Amino acid sequence: MPRVSQDHLDARRRQILDGARSCFARHGYEGATVRRLEEATGLSRGAIFHHFRDKESLFLALAEDDVLRMTEVVAQQGLVQVMRDLLAGPTEAEGETPADWLGTRLEVSRRLRTDPEFRARWAERSEQLTIATRNRLLRQREAGKLRDDVDVTVLTAFLELVLEGVVSHLAMGLPADDLEPVLDLVEETVRRHRRAG
Amino acid sequence: MPRVSQDHLDARRRQILDGARSCFARHGYEGATVRRLEEATGLSRGAIFHHFRDKESLFLALAEDDVLRMTEVVAQQGLVQVMRDLLAGPTEAEGETPADWLGTRLEVSRRLRTDPEFRARWAERSEQLTIATRNRLLRQREAGKLRDDVDVTVLTAFLELVLEGVVSHLAMGLPADDLEPVLDLVEETVRRHRRAG
Repeated sequence: MPRVSQDHLDARRRQILDGARSCFARHGYEGATVRRLEEATGLSRGAIFHHFRDKESLFLALAEDDVLRMTEVVAQQGLVQVMRDLLAGPTEAEGETPADWLGTRLEVSRRLRTDPEFRARWAERSEQLTIATRNRLLRQREAGKLRDDVDVTVLTAFLELVLEGVVSHLAMGLPADDLEPVLDLVEETVRRHRRAG
Repeated sequence: MPRVSQDHLDARRRQILDGARSCFARHGYEGATVRRLEEATGLSRGAIFHHFRDKESLFLALAEDDVLRMTEVVAQQGLVQVMRDLLAGPTEAEGETPADWLGTRLEVSRRLRTDPEFRARWAERSEQLTIATRNRLLRQREAGKLRDDVDVTVLTAFLELVLEGVVSHLAMGLPADDLEPVLDLVEETVRRHRRAG
């Protein structure tokens, strides 16, 4: 029997995460039984829990995955771009539906409300996004592109609050076709103001 | 037996709504059984369903009640004030906890996601808040207090998106003590810009 390569392990891990994402989105955390996770991933419970200790760990890995990807976009293009990506829906390369992504995000929201232990575990993860957002804003300020009359902490919290609004808006299935000019306004709000005269 | 006065009917209706609000907040819509509604309101099912046709009607009356109150605040003080009130928590006169208010709002969100029929019924109600916000902004623009380089429709959608963010933020039990300066920024964003020179 050949040794299992790291590439193979990574691909297998990805396969589990992708299947689990749809499964959690469709059935919610409680409803995503081991049986359903097997069906969604096309793998046995043995294979799934070889990679992830338990369902909780699998869900957290999924949510962390999202935060990591968002953090990468923030570092390059800022948090408003994350919101624009949400409105546009996923790229084909990612192969996810917005519903899948939102499903994970909503499950995080639900558990934050109802599970204090989860809230503590999650706080560390979500802080990464705050730090990435803040660092991006600090770089923008150094480059003279950011308004300098409002503290970066306030601008960070402002952008995160709008992101929460966008997620909630999409999660409720409300029409999103009028949100592009709103995000333009949000972007303009954190930029350096052009002064007349 | 004396005839039941309108005042008495109104008070009874209020008693049912107040009890039901805590009940829905604590147990969710599905978990708020008739038995629990009786306990929470201190009234019999006969009395409760004399005033409201069924549980669905009772819940909608409650949610409408919230929208109406928010609409009144918007007309007088604008949507940012609604957000400030949410952060500050309820007044003692209202005798509600923020959790109660949020409970109703979250139940609305959940049903919007999962129940297309409810979504249609709710659209009319939530539109009242949009109209009140828009009218308030139009009056502010006439009074020269609003920026005139962005369409009122966009400013309305911007404020509503931030409100959704505030509700979601509070619902997740995240710290809200840093949001006051963010709301200042939101308010400033819709105001007429002071120009230099």
